[in-house]
Amino acid sequence: MAKNPIVRDILKRYRQVWALNHSMALMGWDTETHMPEGGATPRGMASGQLAMMVQKATVELDGMVRKAEKARDMDDMEKGVVRVLRRGLDFSLKIPPEMVDELQRVTTEATVVWRTARKKSDFKLFRPHLEKIVKLERKVAEKLGYEKHPYNALLNMFEEGFTVRDADAVYSKLIPASRKLVDKVMAAGVYPEKHPLETAKYETEAVERVNQGVVGILKMPGDRFRMDVSTHPFSVRIASDDVRITTRYEGVNFKGSLFSTIHECGHALYELGIDEKLAYTPLGDGASYGVHESQSRFLENVVGRSREFTKLLDPMLRKNLPFVDGYDDEQLYRYFNTVKRSFIRVEADELTYNFHTALRYEIEKKVIAGDIEVSELPSLWNDTFEEYLGMRPKNDAEGVLQDVHWSGGSFGYFATYTLGNVVAGMIWHKMKDGAFVREALQRGDVMEVREWLRSNIHRYGSTYAPKALQMKVFGEAYNPDRFLQYLTQKYTS
Amino acid sequence: MAKNPIVRDILKRYRQVWALNHSMALMGWDTETHMPEGGATPRGMASGQLAMMVQKATVELDGMVRKAEKARDMDDMEKGVVRVLRRGLDFSLKIPPEMVDELQRVTTEATVVWRTARKKSDFKLFRPHLEKIVKLERKVAEKLGYEKHPYNALLNMFEEGFTVRDADAVYSKLIPASRKLVDKVMAAGVYPEKHPLETAKYETEAVERVNQGVVGILKMPGDRFRMDVSTHPFSVRIASDDVRITTRYEGVNFKGSLFSTIHECGHALYELGIDEKLAYTPLGDGASYGVHESQSRFLENVVGRSREFTKLLDPMLRKNLPFVDGYDDEQLYRYFNTVKRSFIRVEADELTYNFHTALRYEIEKKVIAGDIEVSELPSLWNDTFEEYLGMRPKNDAEGVLQDVHWSGGSFGYFATYTLGNVVAGMIWHKMKDGAFVREALQRGDVMEVREWLRSNIHRYGSTYAPKALQMKVFGEAYNPDRFLQYLTQKYTS
Repeated sequence: MAKNPIVRDILKRYRQVWALNHSMALMGWDTETHMPEGGATPRGMASGQLAMMVQKATVELDGMVRKAEKARDMDDMEKGVVRVLRRGLDFSLKIPPEMVDELQRVTTEATVVWRTARKKSDFKLFRPHLEKIVKLERKVAEKLGYEKHPYNALLNMFEEGFTVRDADAVYSKLIPASRKLVDKVMAAGVYPEKHPLETAKYETEAVERVNQGVVGILKMPGDRFRMDVSTHPFSVRIASDDVRITTRYEGVNFKGSLFSTIHECGHALYELGIDEKLAYTPLGDGASYGVHESQSRFLENVVGRSREFTKLLDPMLRKNLPFVDGYDDEQLYRYFNTVKRSFIRVEADELTYNFHTALRYEIEKKVIAGDIEVSELPSLWNDTFEEYLGMRPKNDAEGVLQDVHWSGGSFGYFATYTLGNVVAGMIWHKMKDGAFVREALQRGDVMEVREWLRSNIHRYGSTYAPKALQMKVFGEAYNPDRFLQYLTQKYTS
Repeated sequence: MAKNPIVRDILKRYRQVWALNHSMALMGWDTETHMPEGGATPRGMASGQLAMMVQKATVELDGMVRKAEKARDMDDMEKGVVRVLRRGLDFSLKIPPEMVDELQRVTTEATVVWRTARKKSDFKLFRPHLEKIVKLERKVAEKLGYEKHPYNALLNMFEEGFTVRDADAVYSKLIPASRKLVDKVMAAGVYPEKHPLETAKYETEAVERVNQGVVGILKMPGDRFRMDVSTHPFSVRIASDDVRITTRYEGVNFKGSLFSTIHECGHALYELGIDEKLAYTPLGDGASYGVHESQSRFLENVVGRSREFTKLLDPMLRKNLPFVDGYDDEQLYRYFNTVKRSFIRVEADELTYNFHTALRYEIEKKVIAGDIEVSELPSLWNDTFEEYLGMRPKNDAEGVLQDVHWSGGSFGYFATYTLGNVVAGMIWHKMKDGAFVREALQRGDVMEVREWLRSNIHRYGSTYAPKALQMKVFGEAYNPDRFLQYLTQKYTS
């Protein structure tokens, strides 16, 4: 517990907010996993009511947080509590309720329209809704305030302290280097574009057993963790000792389900590794979207898609999936690591993924600044895509309409996916350019890797802002060189 | 929506309470079905916080409810809203928070001790805890206020308006008649005490398919209903269009699982049948514990344990449970309807069940009035048991220690189980002494029975107090003769 009496009082009062968030997290999980269809309308109603209560209870903390901001001699945890609450208050106090309501209304409607527009591959349908959203997002940026670029206000909502300048620095290195690398890797032909296992059909039960086996290899704690099924996989912390993931079963191409599971386990391990003493506080959460994504990408790609991990998976795969017969571990490894330029972000591999977010980042930056109009988005999308990947989407469905994010008003989100890769690369570098991971996996010792992540990153929760955390762990922040080194070592050596 | 402007305002404000109750219902469901062990402590913390918020939000309605109580020309729904809220406020305003806290603390501890005491069959361990609880329950009765008998205050908490006088009237008819009836039925020997199928072991998956089949026969709506597994079966309304039950699988004696499922479906149908316009109001719930139990008992016993329903189950049972081969429908019917004097309430059949609640009712009435001391409970239990059932428990575990209710402070609850039987009997009588049910089931038409229950009982929710509802439907309330007639017809004709 905090020593500072004001922070102690704050944490006591905060329990109400914590309890409301706990039940909202459970409601969210249930909605995606078990809820009968008929529960949707009342669930929406209940979530709305609880969100208002959270909002009210948070705003009530403002006076105490103000006092605490003037206090001295606070330890890192106490400073963290004040910092994180101020971030929440900033939004609550600066954005008027009418604007929150309007955003809610506009995005709910836009999401419905977006689904139809994508199905019909017709941007015109979606355009007026997106225009409203962009206008609102610009207003949000104005209300929140920013230095230099309005988009900074939005980036900061997802990644504390992350700016256009930071993002430009990341992408200006990542994109040209990735283009060369992809050319080289594809020319070499070791990593195939396609693999016969991609068309192998499977029984859900068989891959369920495989995923249970993966959960076993990763030593996920059975008394604090569970796995369910949902259309879109996710992880959620219901409480510090109750973290859940979901996975999906599509009946074909089992690596989709397998790596979804590993990815979500990466997120879950972060939540499970947060120091017990941060439970029930505002710090019992990841440092940022980017840092959170670094944990899932690291586990999915650096660990999961390695030759060493493939070896660990081998007996389980052969036992449950008869169709892998005739493919040795090297073949399985290549199936797990196909490299291909594709139109759809969520299907992209490690090497090409960042092109997709860079494109979205550039577009968002320009449209929020008012440098381009919403009507110009499809052509700008296609031009930039062609520049990065050398091919042009044939229609809006495989272009500008593919993601749900904009219809939900999530401007500033996409870059954090790449930050996940970037920070995963920094971890890889810190782990002796991956040697630490390879050696641990050769011994079948996943716990050693988990323990590194826990003691260096997980345990702090959101005690430190993402840049401060990176400086503490790596002595540098968001350095894309490490990720490029990782890719180069993996794909060209 | 209500026409009265005060009630309209009340209902608007009430949505917060509704939302909190919604999330607490989901939390309760999750705790028993899916939550990893580690989630227990935070779940307890969250429930406590939310319960306080409900309490606070309810008390804030007092002024408006007071105003509404003076209003005229309200319709039944509006009157119901005011009546039900007043019941909740009565408890919140009359019982000081310290007393609620103390009850919470004492009962939590007592429940832990009770488990050990039952395991060791040692009432002495439990006695000091039960003494504290009885003392507190007496205080609660004093604070709530009552006419004539302090136990009336406690009975009223579970069954609105139900009194010692009512209970005495029910039991004084039910007990002597049941004693004669049991003697007669057991002498006749048509209904066996034991059946070979009681020892038949089953695979969980097989009985799961049977239960899914039952859910199908009962036409439970798949988009508004789901079934899970828990140690103690229960039903819960998460929302008007999201009602869930659980069942259990013990691996032997499949009727346990089967009739649990049917019982809980009875509760669920009540919740599913409540008029849509009562959603999000305080009336979207059953009329009382007794009336609720009448729905589950009616479906379990009058419908489920009938020859006609056995015939409907037949193909499904034969398909999934090979061991029923060689038992015809009459044999299955007798297996479903064994009659036996037993020590354990939850194992009792229709004919002997009410002895168990009568015993507890008599003891509670005396101990709350201070006519007997807690220390006298074991011997009073055994003496009364012997009087009713002609046999004497060999130890406290199969006697006074068998139920969890007292350790949780639920004094006044047990009688409602019998009210369930009594009201189920009244429904049976209203349905032409069961002919309506038998004919519908012979046609395989469960919906006709469901529709009767929905239009006569379910749809009103808690618009009417239980006695008023019974007067409306039956022209009489809690008349035990109907249930006795039902038993006599079923077991002696």
